[in-house]
Amino acid sequence: MNINQRLADLREVMRREHLAAYIFPSTDPHQSEYVADHWKGREWISGFNGSAGTAVVTLTSAALWTDSRYFLAAEEQLKGTEYQLMKLKIEGTPTIAEWLGKEIMQSRHPYEDWSEVAIDGRCSSANAVKELIADLRKQNGITLRTNFDPLKLIWKGRPVIPENPVEIYPMEYAGESCRDKIGRIRQALREKHADGMLMAALDDIAWTLNLRGSDVHCNPVFVSYLLISPKSVTLYINKVKLTPEVLACLKAEDIKVEDYEQVENGLKAYFEYNILLDPDEVNYRLYEVVRNKGKQNSCPQTEIVEEESPVKRMKTVKNEREIAGFRSAMLKDGIAMVKFLRFLDLRIKNLENEPLTEIGVDEMLTALRAEQPLFRGISFDTIAGYGEHGAVVHYEPTPETDIPLKPEGLLLLDSGAQYLDGTTDITRTIALGPLTEEMKKVYTLVLKGHIQIELCKFPSGASGTQIDILARQAMWREGLNYLHGTGHGVGTYLNVHEGPHQFRMEWKPAPLVAGMTITDEPGIYLAGKFGARIENTLLIVPYKETEFGKFLQFESLTLCPIDKAPILVDMLLPEEIGWLNDYHKMVFDTLSPHLSDDEISWLQEACAPVYF
Amino acid sequence: MNINQRLADLREVMRREHLAAYIFPSTDPHQSEYVADHWKGREWISGFNGSAGTAVVTLTSAALWTDSRYFLAAEEQLKGTEYQLMKLKIEGTPTIAEWLGKEIMQSRHPYEDWSEVAIDGRCSSANAVKELIADLRKQNGITLRTNFDPLKLIWKGRPVIPENPVEIYPMEYAGESCRDKIGRIRQALREKHADGMLMAALDDIAWTLNLRGSDVHCNPVFVSYLLISPKSVTLYINKVKLTPEVLACLKAEDIKVEDYEQVENGLKAYFEYNILLDPDEVNYRLYEVVRNKGKQNSCPQTEIVEEESPVKRMKTVKNEREIAGFRSAMLKDGIAMVKFLRFLDLRIKNLENEPLTEIGVDEMLTALRAEQPLFRGISFDTIAGYGEHGAVVHYEPTPETDIPLKPEGLLLLDSGAQYLDGTTDITRTIALGPLTEEMKKVYTLVLKGHIQIELCKFPSGASGTQIDILARQAMWREGLNYLHGTGHGVGTYLNVHEGPHQFRMEWKPAPLVAGMTITDEPGIYLAGKFGARIENTLLIVPYKETEFGKFLQFESLTLCPIDKAPILVDMLLPEEIGWLNDYHKMVFDTLSPHLSDDEISWLQEACAPVYF
Repeated sequence: MNINQRLADLREVMRREHLAAYIFPSTDPHQSEYVADHWKGREWISGFNGSAGTAVVTLTSAALWTDSRYFLAAEEQLKGTEYQLMKLKIEGTPTIAEWLGKEIMQSRHPYEDWSEVAIDGRCSSANAVKELIADLRKQNGITLRTNFDPLKLIWKGRPVIPENPVEIYPMEYAGESCRDKIGRIRQALREKHADGMLMAALDDIAWTLNLRGSDVHCNPVFVSYLLISPKSVTLYINKVKLTPEVLACLKAEDIKVEDYEQVENGLKAYFEYNILLDPDEVNYRLYEVVRNKGKQNSCPQTEIVEEESPVKRMKTVKNEREIAGFRSAMLKDGIAMVKFLRFLDLRIKNLENEPLTEIGVDEMLTALRAEQPLFRGISFDTIAGYGEHGAVVHYEPTPETDIPLKPEGLLLLDSGAQYLDGTTDITRTIALGPLTEEMKKVYTLVLKGHIQIELCKFPSGASGTQIDILARQAMWREGLNYLHGTGHGVGTYLNVHEGPHQFRMEWKPAPLVAGMTITDEPGIYLAGKFGARIENTLLIVPYKETEFGKFLQFESLTLCPIDKAPILVDMLLPEEIGWLNDYHKMVFDTLSPHLSDDEISWLQEACAPVYF
Repeated sequence: MNINQRLADLREVMRREHLAAYIFPSTDPHQSEYVADHWKGREWISGFNGSAGTAVVTLTSAALWTDSRYFLAAEEQLKGTEYQLMKLKIEGTPTIAEWLGKEIMQSRHPYEDWSEVAIDGRCSSANAVKELIADLRKQNGITLRTNFDPLKLIWKGRPVIPENPVEIYPMEYAGESCRDKIGRIRQALREKHADGMLMAALDDIAWTLNLRGSDVHCNPVFVSYLLISPKSVTLYINKVKLTPEVLACLKAEDIKVEDYEQVENGLKAYFEYNILLDPDEVNYRLYEVVRNKGKQNSCPQTEIVEEESPVKRMKTVKNEREIAGFRSAMLKDGIAMVKFLRFLDLRIKNLENEPLTEIGVDEMLTALRAEQPLFRGISFDTIAGYGEHGAVVHYEPTPETDIPLKPEGLLLLDSGAQYLDGTTDITRTIALGPLTEEMKKVYTLVLKGHIQIELCKFPSGASGTQIDILARQAMWREGLNYLHGTGHGVGTYLNVHEGPHQFRMEWKPAPLVAGMTITDEPGIYLAGKFGARIENTLLIVPYKETEFGKFLQFESLTLCPIDKAPILVDMLLPEEIGWLNDYHKMVFDTLSPHLSDDEISWLQEACAPVYF
């Protein structure tokens, strides 16, 4: 991969177009977190392959913004390129607009007074582009062009938009018909005084239609748009993806099918008075199509209702079938994890003879999961970070970085699977042998944070921003912290990251209600040393109702022992020890009927209670 | 007070003006929390005297919205009127717009198709009115008139706008000159790309100019506006309030003085390009004056920069002199509190012979505070709630409600003082004799919440929304809660409530930084039984700096023992007992040099450590 050549090609095009800079965000026309290869333009131009990051290229410089999960990985991947790493949320890091303001002022030649920057308006949300326009304007009036994609000219061999087949997601797992979901969506639109909506989020479309695809690595979604108007529903999709069975199913539900590229025309022909466009979900190009309709004589004016898509929250509240599916998927995942942990335990004693690397860990674990019924693949790239790799928050071992495990230190293992009945996401940090006191202390602080979330009781409707501190208070007292969120929603055989609710330090107003899934995954990362993270997926369930309202609590869905070897028991509160022992008893009781005698003895030991 | 007659007078005016409803908010043209009597229109029309509440009157109905602090008080005060109590933040309570939508639809007569509602645009913030306009529009297009004040016609004997003298606040306590503050404000305005600003918040003006007044009960502020432009500063104030000394001081600082009523003309004559107007602070009328300037031929267009006033945050970060003043004020307040608590202790044994009522408590405590140097008055009306009155969150005893104390149960005492060197705010809940197990449990849960905030360590810049849960987690586990905030900033011989930072369940983005004061005051209120609240005022100070950034902690400024009698020690964590004992030792060590021998022996007992 020759990044410098690609930058040279890009700058040639920029000069021709009189552009001072080009911005490459990480997303696609659907604001996906993980995108199909066709839209990996930021990776292509920078070499950085994390799920979040923005590359900005001027005629004389280049920079890449990413968040703390990727600081170490980005540093590694940008080595030898001219990209400067910009660490988000670190004091002193300029915004993209601030940086461009300075760079363009500095680099402006007497004969090059271009101060126009460009971005592909299809690959950023309406809100993101609107904010960028406002921010750039403050930098000496820099303007933003939004209708130009240089990748069409310079990216040779760019992958096509995927054409993988769509499949039906059975009612047995979905638990609610497409018809009922659309009915509820229409009701929610009426409450927001909207006549219709454009759905762009791929997981929302898959959920609504009870369909699944395989267009995006690890995410069972398919590239499409869904336009809901008061009297019709239209799916915009490359028709080659639809089997006769799926076509029949769509027809039975009265859903029209149009080609993917026709969505702009569909919006122009939308004759109803107003339309809900979630400006964080719909891309700027389509937003502009609707906003500019009235300016063209042939189109009637359509008013935009700018609100959060009601589908986002609906999807996060699981119905009974979905919850049953989660329990089934977690049981299978727990069995695979226990088999893996036992395998690792046995192998550690013999590592010199039978070496095992991080990639080997990933392969072994995935193979064990694949033995389970309804397995459909992993839900994200396995993070298997041994030793100092554990401090790289989103480390994914590659043949270049892969290292063998040794019988000492900590292995951080964050992984998950897609089963037809549910999606899993689990992190365990495993002692491979002797540990330093620092490792034990850090591990125990992470465990305390994890357990405090598990123990939390809260009024229905509280936000994850309120609860987040419970995972951090113990480590903050030691001056330690992690900069990623503490938890995210998990889809039903859908994306492993599902919003809008989260546990995090930043404000996330989405209220937590019963039926939601959410992960609990605090961590601590000491660069160059090691990392620790402990993650269960939780279900929000009722706790009690009093004169002060309805209170909720968490139930652990994840079924897998938490390594006790690194625990400094004296640092735990009695309630924390109580939770750990109760959890381990539940894990043992639930998993053991499905295990061999040898596995049961191993699990018994792993789940034995700890005492002061 | 004949509320029904006032409503009849109002409705006569409403009919004449073709108004379907009139809205009376609780604030004044400066968005003050506590207002001068002239602006107590909501109290005059409804009889409800809480600091927060909105009365809405239609031709056939009336309702009053208030928050949980005032539910019980409002119920009492609205008895016998036609007002319906609307409990904010309780499920099922309609918004004002929703309620008006229904009421106006229902009551509309064939010959009365008025659907216009009115509010005095001077007595609500620009944002509040803009939101109301948008909300009403959704209710079948109800419109809002903003330029009509019926109180001018119907309120006989309305108090005038106060004309009390302004006094200089010495540098010895202010710690920063008016000139330096205005320099910093101008710098902050430049960073927000603003040329000037209109300051409307009375405490911001008092802080900026190092002046104080006495126009508002308990708040040492004076009614005025301050217009800052790049080259001049103008104070709009009734000139009768300015002594020669203050006039000379203003002149020395180059601050022009114009009459209070001239502020609109001042804004029309503001020729600079743009102006910062904080839309939560500036009233709708003045906002509209600026917004409409360009529409009048005689005025140049002025662009409005809608941002939070930079003064709000500046004022909350105390300088060294201010912090020294706080410590001095807290020492005096602690001495007065200890004298009072000892007096109460001695009196309880003899209550039958020498009865003491809630008002007596208030009078005695205020008298003891008044003995202290630099005392200027109380900082808010004392809340002395005995028994079930303790459950009325903002209960202020009146001759009608006053009850005698008995040697049993709990007295909730929330009070504070204005000293020239600082403002205090403290709550103690005191056992007067035998308590029920429920009282002890509730008190101990409140104490745990209080201590968990005291113990909290957090990264600089965290928000109070993140931290709030620490005060609630123990009580949430018991299904208990309180609906008010957990803490607020405190001014320097200024308003006892100072924002924008707070601890609360709702989102408050204001970052917490070193130098801020903030109260820590969780509570639990069991209606008809009793209430418990424990409050200290804290200072935010540095904790430690690590590779994860700067961490902060709290230091208790309040110096007063916390009643140990109601504590169920077994419910406390070791760290909570440790904090309590350390705090009491610090209180004893700091106060005892200033007390008599008898007082010292009492304090020694009150501050003796507790053990498991």
